[in-house]
Amino acid sequence: MTMVCLSDFEAYAKKYLPKMAWDFFAAGADDCSTRDENILAYKRIHFRPRMLRDVSMMDIRTKLLGTEISFPVGIAPTGFHQLAWPDGEKSTARAAKAMNTCYIVSTYSTCTLEEISAAAPGGLRWFQLYIHRNRAVSQQLVQQAEALGFQGLVLTADLPYTGKRRDDVRNGFRLPPHMKLKNIEDAFEVCKISPLDPSVTWNDIYWLRSLTHLPIIIKGILTKEDAELAVRHGVQGIIVSNHGGRQLDGGPATIDALVEVVEAVQDRVEVYLDGGIRKGSDVLKALSLGAKCVFIGRPALWGLTYKGEEGLQDVLRILQDEFRLSIALAGCANVSEIGRHLVQFSKL
Amino acid sequence: MTMVCLSDFEAYAKKYLPKMAWDFFAAGADDCSTRDENILAYKRIHFRPRMLRDVSMMDIRTKLLGTEISFPVGIAPTGFHQLAWPDGEKSTARAAKAMNTCYIVSTYSTCTLEEISAAAPGGLRWFQLYIHRNRAVSQQLVQQAEALGFQGLVLTADLPYTGKRRDDVRNGFRLPPHMKLKNIEDAFEVCKISPLDPSVTWNDIYWLRSLTHLPIIIKGILTKEDAELAVRHGVQGIIVSNHGGRQLDGGPATIDALVEVVEAVQDRVEVYLDGGIRKGSDVLKALSLGAKCVFIGRPALWGLTYKGEEGLQDVLRILQDEFRLSIALAGCANVSEIGRHLVQFSKL
Amino acid sequence: MTMVCLSDFEAYAKKYLPKMAWDFFAAGADDCSTRDENILAYKRIHFRPRMLRDVSMMDIRTKLLGTEISFPVGIAPTGFHQLAWPDGEKSTARAAKAMNTCYIVSTYSTCTLEEISAAAPGGLRWFQLYIHRNRAVSQQLVQQAEALGFQGLVLTADLPYTGKRRDDVRNGFRLPPHMKLKNIEDAFEVCKISPLDPSVTWNDIYWLRSLTHLPIIIKGILTKEDAELAVRHGVQGIIVSNHGGRQLDGGPATIDALVEVVEAVQDRVEVYLDGGIRKGSDVLKALSLGAKCVFIGRPALWGLTYKGEEGLQDVLRILQDEFRLSIALAGCANVSEIGRHLVQFSKL
Amino acid sequence: MTMVCLSDFEAYAKKYLPKMAWDFFAAGADDCSTRDENILAYKRIHFRPRMLRDVSMMDIRTKLLGTEISFPVGIAPTGFHQLAWPDGEKSTARAAKAMNTCYIVSTYSTCTLEEISAAAPGGLRWFQLYIHRNRAVSQQLVQQAEALGFQGLVLTADLPYTGKRRDDVRNGFRLPPHMKLKNIEDAFEVCKISPLDPSVTWNDIYWLRSLTHLPIIIKGILTKEDAELAVRHGVQGIIVSNHGGRQLDGGPATIDALVEVVEAVQDRVEVYLDGGIRKGSDVLKALSLGAKCVFIGRPALWGLTYKGEEGLQDVLRILQDEFRLSIALAGCANVSEIGRHLVQFSKL
Repeated sequence: MTMVCLSDFEAYAKKYLPKMAWDFFAAGADDCSTRDENILAYKRIHFRPRMLRDVSMMDIRTKLLGTEISFPVGIAPTGFHQLAWPDGEKSTARAAKAMNTCYIVSTYSTCTLEEISAAAPGGLRWFQLYIHRNRAVSQQLVQQAEALGFQGLVLTADLPYTGKRRDDVRNGFRLPPHMKLKNIEDAFEVCKISPLDPSVTWNDIYWLRSLTHLPIIIKGILTKEDAELAVRHGVQGIIVSNHGGRQLDGGPATIDALVEVVEAVQDRVEVYLDGGIRKGSDVLKALSLGAKCVFIGRPALWGLTYKGEEGLQDVLRILQDEFRLSIALAGCANVSEIGRHLVQFSKL
Repeated sequence: MTMVCLSDFEAYAKKYLPKMAWDFFAAGADDCSTRDENILAYKRIHFRPRMLRDVSMMDIRTKLLGTEISFPVGIAPTGFHQLAWPDGEKSTARAAKAMNTCYIVSTYSTCTLEEISAAAPGGLRWFQLYIHRNRAVSQQLVQQAEALGFQGLVLTADLPYTGKRRDDVRNGFRLPPHMKLKNIEDAFEVCKISPLDPSVTWNDIYWLRSLTHLPIIIKGILTKEDAELAVRHGVQGIIVSNHGGRQLDGGPATIDALVEVVEAVQDRVEVYLDGGIRKGSDVLKALSLGAKCVFIGRPALWGLTYKGEEGLQDVLRILQDEFRLSIALAGCANVSEIGRHLVQFSKL
Repeated sequence: MTMVCLSDFEAYAKKYLPKMAWDFFAAGADDCSTRDENILAYKRIHFRPRMLRDVSMMDIRTKLLGTEISFPVGIAPTGFHQLAWPDGEKSTARAAKAMNTCYIVSTYSTCTLEEISAAAPGGLRWFQLYIHRNRAVSQQLVQQAEALGFQGLVLTADLPYTGKRRDDVRNGFRLPPHMKLKNIEDAFEVCKISPLDPSVTWNDIYWLRSLTHLPIIIKGILTKEDAELAVRHGVQGIIVSNHGGRQLDGGPATIDALVEVVEAVQDRVEVYLDGGIRKGSDVLKALSLGAKCVFIGRPALWGLTYKGEEGLQDVLRILQDEFRLSIALAGCANVSEIGRHLVQFSKL
Repeated sequence: MTMVCLSDFEAYAKKYLPKMAWDFFAAGADDCSTRDENILAYKRIHFRPRMLRDVSMMDIRTKLLGTEISFPVGIAPTGFHQLAWPDGEKSTARAAKAMNTCYIVSTYSTCTLEEISAAAPGGLRWFQLYIHRNRAVSQQLVQQAEALGFQGLVLTADLPYTGKRRDDVRNGFRLPPHMKLKNIEDAFEVCKISPLDPSVTWNDIYWLRSLTHLPIIIKGILTKEDAELAVRHGVQGIIVSNHGGRQLDGGPATIDALVEVVEAVQDRVEVYLDGGIRKGSDVLKALSLGAKCVFIGRPALWGLTYKGEEGLQDVLRILQDEFRLSIALAGCANVSEIGRHLVQFSKL
């Protein structure tokens, strides 16, 4: 089997993963409308490619909050990487470092933050945080991440409760006994109810700010109103995300929501996006509409499933090649030449 | 079989109901365009969910004309519940009471109003009325309902004649011999033609008003012009409904019609909706667009078919859980926080 | 088999007609886009039905150029009725008379005008004309029609050449040897090329006017510009038609074109429509948008195929019943109450 | 098998070509969205046909930069014609000459320019050029083409790098050993990397101008900005093209891009189009929107596959007949009567 595009990895994962794991990774909330819209929405955006511009010297590097990465695609936070590959998040970290990009490590990792850090020393990593009812758990995680050299703190804002993913309910999804949520084992043991705190508000950004010097990035913003609030509360970045369509079904595709968020933010902080990225040209569309970088969730898991860190590198390399080709064919030699003029929304 | 969402109950009912009964419940008029649009239209409405709002204390209760119900979903009037479950409307009444919501009892019930009342004393019930050519029949039913403690009178306005439901014609649909329209048996026997009066006009609202102290709710309104007339004729509530797509095929989806009705009514009376509700997030969409409450028709019948009153409670409980989760994920802790800002119509 | 709606007759005809005849009747030009659009376009028009209007006394009669018909549906001109039923156009004439509506007899009939007239004396008939290169042929037909009591002359404007219907080319379509175009046999024999004159222009309306006292109706108009020209050249009626999608593929659906034609005509002449009528509610949509009457083509042929004049009466009766029900459910008791306010174009 | 329309040739080619060749000809970039949009976009354009105009004397000739061709359809540049038919581009040249139209010979031909010229002396041919890193190669080809009587030079602007065509990657596409790119064999041998120069800019138009007296036509323009630049740099013609959807997936359909290019150009140079032409009425749509002529790519290859030059003539003759019929049915007797008023974009 030749792996030519990301769909090839998806097909592989669907074929070889245990059904319960595949279903968990693939799941969207309710009817999966938002999950599917994330992808379909890209098809309604058309390029306006420019010709006869010198694209002989391509440079697709960009910077995330000042740190250079090899191209504008990072790894979104997703849980339970050991479901995909035995080494779990350690493999993810190695692949991200090898490809010189950013990996957002999930609270729900099956390796400890120390293990992940040790697997790929010096790699660019951000830590994704859910705020726990027991604030001490969160505080400790944040401070541990900072101590381990993580360079950003990503607060997930769209999960006061977990979305309803029908297949997970049907399957009675749970981790196999030999896997653990190693960073929050204790937290789960003391809570009979969900350990996550549904009372979190914007003011908790100030609390987080008091715990750490790391830049704070908020993930899960879909409206201009929340984008404005995020900026006013001092975050350094916003990830436009609907949690891969796993939370509120019926929300907008992230590429559609990006437009209003970017317009509201007016370059005051960096704006990123996750959801629905399947081709290099999707990355170009997101950057044309104002994203500084995008993050991939499921495709990273498919890559891991295929061949661990090698497989994830394959996925990233394909995206990198496709992105380089796409921006060249659109007439840009580097990311600074990308802009709103490159795309138009289909009248259909 | 795990019952996870309303579609599971639909699949069950389709599999286990006799074809004639399934066809009758499922039927739409002509090509069933409006029946199907009722559902499809929700997919064109997107949420604008808000983040980081304290949703730790959820309260999804609401009031119908001043009476509290546990969440904004009631049982729409549908006929012939014995086709779904032996105890028929008695089971429906028990389930509605157990879930503390409103049940609109149809004129075409297979149990008498007394039986229904006795099955679930103290439950919140409204009585749905067709006006008969023989006005004495209608008068008697209205007064009986009032005497039995029904708290509202729902006048169905969209059935001067019965819509053309092709499968019912093909099947030669009729009730099995052991079932009776117990509240209007005599009425049917004296009429060779349809006992319903196609000459009813707005002035008949005044006649109804003269018969009863109950609040009058009109069901079947789809335009701003009729909404205005309804308010002017003194109704207490309006149910935006197209009779489940069973009357005039080609009419609007109720969620689309809701917008113009709400705009015309300007809060002078309560506005409700039925048609196409299949998920908790559909309820949230309807409330965001101004409905005070929605009513479910076919899903209630599927629940009855599955396990009588228990099955119907399952259906209501699933909707309740989904609604609670949806409004929390949209950033609201109670129904008063829901508003027009939460939704946008898809440009597609 | 119960015949409940027009699709039932279509299924019957598809099953029992010889393939060459079915293909000929069903054919559209090229990709059949316009043929199919004629039907799909109705689905994009939604009713705004009005409630609680007295619809106890329904009257669905209308008038065509002053002559009363039982409901606003006539028989469009189509050729070769003997392909559908041995008695051919004689059966059509009998059915139209029995149902008290108008039958537009095609130049391409397989019975003579005399035979057709004799089959149903006193029936309301219009004669459809193609202008021949040999003008004497056309003159003779017009004058024969007038002498036989035909009450209108329908000039088909959209066939300077015959559209490309792929299946007819593949099948090598031609009439079976025992069928003849009885009204123009000689015309065909003297012409090696098509006997129809592609040089016809608006001035030929004046020539037709000089031949006959019959009202002239022009068929095939799709634009406001041509509608204006038709009125200025003194026609009495306009049939908005794209020849059932058999001529220029890619033209508009007739129900869409109707809007601009009606707006241009401003009630100066009557406007009719053919194409895509499959349900009584389609008739109501066309009348709501300004058509005085519609005509059915293929459904009439399906009715003939089913049971000759009886079958065609079945088709007409079903449409009549559906139309009566539709306008009642929309809140109208007669055709004069129908208007533009009853419909809206879907935003989709 | 009767060949009635272009799809028949497509079906033939799909059936009889080796998979690798079929895949290569059929390939689009990535998801093939743009390739497919090229065709779908025509379906969103509707005609506004005019009636009763004298179309007895049809004349569908047009001129390309002053040279008459028999109808406004030429042969777009495509490579490797020997994959379709043993005589390769020699057959193409003979068919184009026989049908009196223009053939744009690709740099990637499997016959030499001399062989092609000798096969059909006096035929109207343009030469399609890619600019090579080794400019001497390009210079020699241009001057050879001019010496051989080619009448135009077509610079392809949209291939600084080759698009990602997944099936070609999977198939490991390459020419069979007995076929050669005869005009640039040496060029390929000296380059390990692609011999095409991705540093080409608008200034290279001036370089080309210095090499030849031939008119220069630029191919691959999709925006008004680039159309303006093309005119300012002195080209004589613009071909609106997305390379058959083989380069940047996600670009606009060419028929959609044509509108803005024509508006920008304001008749200063001739504008042509390729992509998605499958019927005579597609040609009429393109001309109505301002194209002077269209070019066919894949359909020409299907014709060659079917029967070499005869098969290609069949394809051209079908298009010619369909185009003649279409413009007659739209009410035009020659191409000068075609205009923007003949079409409207579907509201859908």
